[in-house]
Amino acid sequence: MHLNVAQKLIASHLVHGKLSAGDEIGISVDQTLTQDATGTLVMLELEAMGLDYARTKLSVQYVDHNLIQEDYRNADDHLFLRSAAERFGLWYSRPGNGVSHPCHQENFGKPGATLLGSDSHTPAAGALGMLAIGAGGLEVAQAIAGEPFLTRMPQIWGIRLTGSLPDWVSAKDVILEMLRRHGVDGGVGRIIEYHGPGLAGLSAMDRHVIANMGAELGATASVFPSDRETRRFLRAWQRENDWSELGADAGAAYDIEDEIDLSSLEPLIAMPSSPGNVVTVKEVAGEPIYQAYIGSSANPGYRDFAVAAAIVRDKAVHERVSFDVNPTSRAQLEMLSREGYVQDLLHAGARLHQAGCNGCIGMGQAPATSTLSLRTVPRNFPGRSGTPEDKVCLVSPETAAASALAGEITDPRTLPMPYPRISDPDHPIVHRAMFARPLPREDAAEVALKKGPNIASLPDFEPLPESFDLPVLLKAGDNVSTDEILPAGARVLPFRSNVPKLAEFAFERIDDTYAKRARDTGDHCVIGGGNYGQGSSREHAALAPRFLGLRVVIAKSFARIHAQNLVNFGILPLTFANEQDYESIKAGDTLHFEGIQTALASGKPLKITLEDGKRTLETRHTLTQRQVEYLRSGGVLNWTQQRLQRT
Amino acid sequence: MHLNVAQKLIASHLVHGKLSAGDEIGISVDQTLTQDATGTLVMLELEAMGLDYARTKLSVQYVDHNLIQEDYRNADDHLFLRSAAERFGLWYSRPGNGVSHPCHQENFGKPGATLLGSDSHTPAAGALGMLAIGAGGLEVAQAIAGEPFLTRMPQIWGIRLTGSLPDWVSAKDVILEMLRRHGVDGGVGRIIEYHGPGLAGLSAMDRHVIANMGAELGATASVFPSDRETRRFLRAWQRENDWSELGADAGAAYDIEDEIDLSSLEPLIAMPSSPGNVVTVKEVAGEPIYQAYIGSSANPGYRDFAVAAAIVRDKAVHERVSFDVNPTSRAQLEMLSREGYVQDLLHAGARLHQAGCNGCIGMGQAPATSTLSLRTVPRNFPGRSGTPEDKVCLVSPETAAASALAGEITDPRTLPMPYPRISDPDHPIVHRAMFARPLPREDAAEVALKKGPNIASLPDFEPLPESFDLPVLLKAGDNVSTDEILPAGARVLPFRSNVPKLAEFAFERIDDTYAKRARDTGDHCVIGGGNYGQGSSREHAALAPRFLGLRVVIAKSFARIHAQNLVNFGILPLTFANEQDYESIKAGDTLHFEGIQTALASGKPLKITLEDGKRTLETRHTLTQRQVEYLRSGGVLNWTQQRLQRT
Repeated sequence: MHLNVAQKLIASHLVHGKLSAGDEIGISVDQTLTQDATGTLVMLELEAMGLDYARTKLSVQYVDHNLIQEDYRNADDHLFLRSAAERFGLWYSRPGNGVSHPCHQENFGKPGATLLGSDSHTPAAGALGMLAIGAGGLEVAQAIAGEPFLTRMPQIWGIRLTGSLPDWVSAKDVILEMLRRHGVDGGVGRIIEYHGPGLAGLSAMDRHVIANMGAELGATASVFPSDRETRRFLRAWQRENDWSELGADAGAAYDIEDEIDLSSLEPLIAMPSSPGNVVTVKEVAGEPIYQAYIGSSANPGYRDFAVAAAIVRDKAVHERVSFDVNPTSRAQLEMLSREGYVQDLLHAGARLHQAGCNGCIGMGQAPATSTLSLRTVPRNFPGRSGTPEDKVCLVSPETAAASALAGEITDPRTLPMPYPRISDPDHPIVHRAMFARPLPREDAAEVALKKGPNIASLPDFEPLPESFDLPVLLKAGDNVSTDEILPAGARVLPFRSNVPKLAEFAFERIDDTYAKRARDTGDHCVIGGGNYGQGSSREHAALAPRFLGLRVVIAKSFARIHAQNLVNFGILPLTFANEQDYESIKAGDTLHFEGIQTALASGKPLKITLEDGKRTLETRHTLTQRQVEYLRSGGVLNWTQQRLQRT
Repeated sequence: MHLNVAQKLIASHLVHGKLSAGDEIGISVDQTLTQDATGTLVMLELEAMGLDYARTKLSVQYVDHNLIQEDYRNADDHLFLRSAAERFGLWYSRPGNGVSHPCHQENFGKPGATLLGSDSHTPAAGALGMLAIGAGGLEVAQAIAGEPFLTRMPQIWGIRLTGSLPDWVSAKDVILEMLRRHGVDGGVGRIIEYHGPGLAGLSAMDRHVIANMGAELGATASVFPSDRETRRFLRAWQRENDWSELGADAGAAYDIEDEIDLSSLEPLIAMPSSPGNVVTVKEVAGEPIYQAYIGSSANPGYRDFAVAAAIVRDKAVHERVSFDVNPTSRAQLEMLSREGYVQDLLHAGARLHQAGCNGCIGMGQAPATSTLSLRTVPRNFPGRSGTPEDKVCLVSPETAAASALAGEITDPRTLPMPYPRISDPDHPIVHRAMFARPLPREDAAEVALKKGPNIASLPDFEPLPESFDLPVLLKAGDNVSTDEILPAGARVLPFRSNVPKLAEFAFERIDDTYAKRARDTGDHCVIGGGNYGQGSSREHAALAPRFLGLRVVIAKSFARIHAQNLVNFGILPLTFANEQDYESIKAGDTLHFEGIQTALASGKPLKITLEDGKRTLETRHTLTQRQVEYLRSGGVLNWTQQRLQRT
């Protein structure tokens, strides 16, 4: 069989299933990446699992999201993450060291390996010929504990690149062209594989730009072959030994095929407020802008900053424009300073921010109300910038810099200067002092986790018993969203590592007495209508009510991801065998559950008796065998703990 | 008469009063400085005054405090301030251009001139032989409108400096020595004047360090002579024409005298949590630290960063330490980058932040809970860093850098290296492109103020009538603080430019129905007990209730500053002639005021009749003639408006 790169990566890591689109497959995970926003919970999950030491080949905890430190919580998180990295045998990338995705590619990326990350832009590492996938925190915790990653085999979508990029057009315009053609769901259920002669002109960091924003197409992953450019990159980062060749077999085919002639591309821009809202820059040139922003994992390379610096050199940005420069990493910034590019940027009027994700994820640099902001970041969803009435556009560094000078959207091809063609350096400053190495296993065991006042261990969750009586604390209507079960937002998010505090917000939009009543009551159940748990996939919407004693949800039907999250945290999701039974239960009733384990094992309906003993009703479940195992253990944390004890 | 420098500065600007300590004096104001945190209200006040064009010689609006931009409000404020600077004929220093105090000294400071600033560290400009004073926003608005600054003539405190600083000891240690000797109230009611042979070894930026933190001694101002060093500094900044000599007359005397032998000083540190809690570094050496922080107006010079860079060059900061570098200005950062110091700092592990005040005023970089943070900033009041349980110490850049390397408090004299003696550059990068010049008067008149959704014009306030009936909406007890009248904190502060929204919080700690009832009622009065309005001097505690219709407060007694603020915003403060009358009024009563203007003019008691017509009570006022004028006009804004129309 002639395999493409994606198939080779999967085949070499397949622990169950087969390479047939739609089949469930299990993939072994070589490396993991966590960042601070998701990582604090992952570390608490590792603690709850009782993990002794990471079972991956390499796991790295980055701190790049929450660097503002407006109060003690960010800094306490950083100390906690450092202690957890020491405890569990992870690398720790210190605050300000840089953005995870490019730092990972530079320091740890390895052709042929798999990477699972609790960040949606993890697929950027596909630039080096890795299979890199973004996932929920609990899945990454399981991967660190040695469990394979389960998913459905995606379709492989081959994109043949031909030609070479014209002056003033760069990698960002390639992925914007993909978004222009296919929209924000064009990649769903697919791995995008780039191939063809056009690759030769794309550096490893150019490929990063393209793979990174595969996430905006909804793709599971984006992959590139590992070739001469990959080798050049790894040699520059003093890791040529990590290089191996990886290419598609001659005659390999793709489930779907498309082609881009790079020579035909021109500067593109995603207008507010979707990455899929792409037009040519020249179509919208002349619109006044108030912010130009370079940085983020979507344009992280040395070249991306240097080309902007060369464009603004000896000029001044327009008086209206805030020109925000967000370096990728301390090491890159040092190089850019050494070569004089930092001076060029500053002299032109740049505001130079600390290395990190920053405004890309709404941490600072919010634009003024209803003013255009041109950014090299990957996303422009409404309000993501921090400004509810924002107007963020996605562009290349060339377009951002040209527009900063003019104070309006500007096609960089109109600049009166030759194109500054800049390559990534062959001799970068390799600067790993700010990565703390994993402790040896024997030292790691001695480390205590450092928990500030806003960090609390996860509670122990009991397995499901064979029978119990549960009062109905809440009866909800149809289409309850996870926002109603556990809100997000600035009031709640700061407590994501503090489940006891977080739980105070559970169901508050439906019934603000729930949390108190649940704490007073203990074990209980909730009745839901149809499509229970729609919306955001946040795991806290299961974790927080479970902390308060939620053991069973009986609903007319469940949103898929929330049902999975309920199971993951040990809550049994049941559906009414007869939907009209929904009407027969009211808040305050007590339900008697009998023969739970038996029903789970057999798949047969579970009979529930109401407190008066006279009425009964039938419920069903559609759990997989694995999910039944999770519930028997009391959830994924317990299940993994037991696996770890056995192996 | 032989005058010292402070007396010469006052004498040359005296518009009324005489140079006798304690007398009220009026000083003409040459220059003003506003920053963004206080400036938005100042600009709204200028609008309310109907100012056409600034009447000072020079006024500069800086943007240095709120640079994080977590949401639209900061960025909207910046656009508003820019439009206001254009409208009123002010210079505008763009966000990220730098911290006001050093930028002002470099670009606008002028020996012999007076400067009034709505920032408590305004006295830093005394380094150049200016009389520079911090004041409330309304006073600065009046100064911009051409009114003199009124104050009581301070005592002049001569500090004779002898000797020269030893290696590893720098200007910060001089002002810490002052704090060690005299504590945080040692300078109250005084101007500190430095003189003597020790001055020769202190650069203009060294003097800035010392004058800046005169604020921590409570001093009205700190002044230095204008001498060769001053001239050298102005020549470097291409402003030698602004230099003039200014020294004390031979035989000039001081009200109080003290002396510091610079040769005898050693590295000092202010321990948590007061600038007056000063000990030698060697006494506390060895305590583990988690943060080392350089920057702020208390150590803003090129030298301050370069010396830290030279100390950490080719080394790495301790793995525990977050080494936060907060550049003073874009121009300084460009110089430090050009000379390689930025690379030194980054290579050692620095987190390089944008140029501005940042963590010094609690905007980011909050330390972890209960961990030592060594900072070169001027203040370490509890919680100012953003962390309630903070432990911030104040040190020199030398001590901060040495401690960053060791991970513990370290006396820099113990470092195994020669002292890197670095001077400020003779040829700095003079970089004024990010200062927007005032528009010419004719263009300024055309500018419209740009107000985002969180910025609202101040309301018009009516003058006091001759008579009115006012319901008593609230009766308060003794010692009501301005925090109870209008709270501060993160929930309220974001609305400081939005009086209608801010007013919703008025008196909420005493009676959370007040704001709604006041809006429904309109004009009303409030009854207070003794010491009404104690605590913070915030003007919003008068402005917000006035917006809701508060016209008169009758109390047993008033805290001085709040009484002044009431008058400034047109609210009449009256005291009971007989304190027992306090008991005879209850919330809900209606009071009839008759002959108000007459009573104000005559100084005679004002009789008030209760609604039943049978009871009367007498009230008094202790208003100055100027205050009576303010009240007749409806407050300072109206008064100044009328003055502007006449002149």
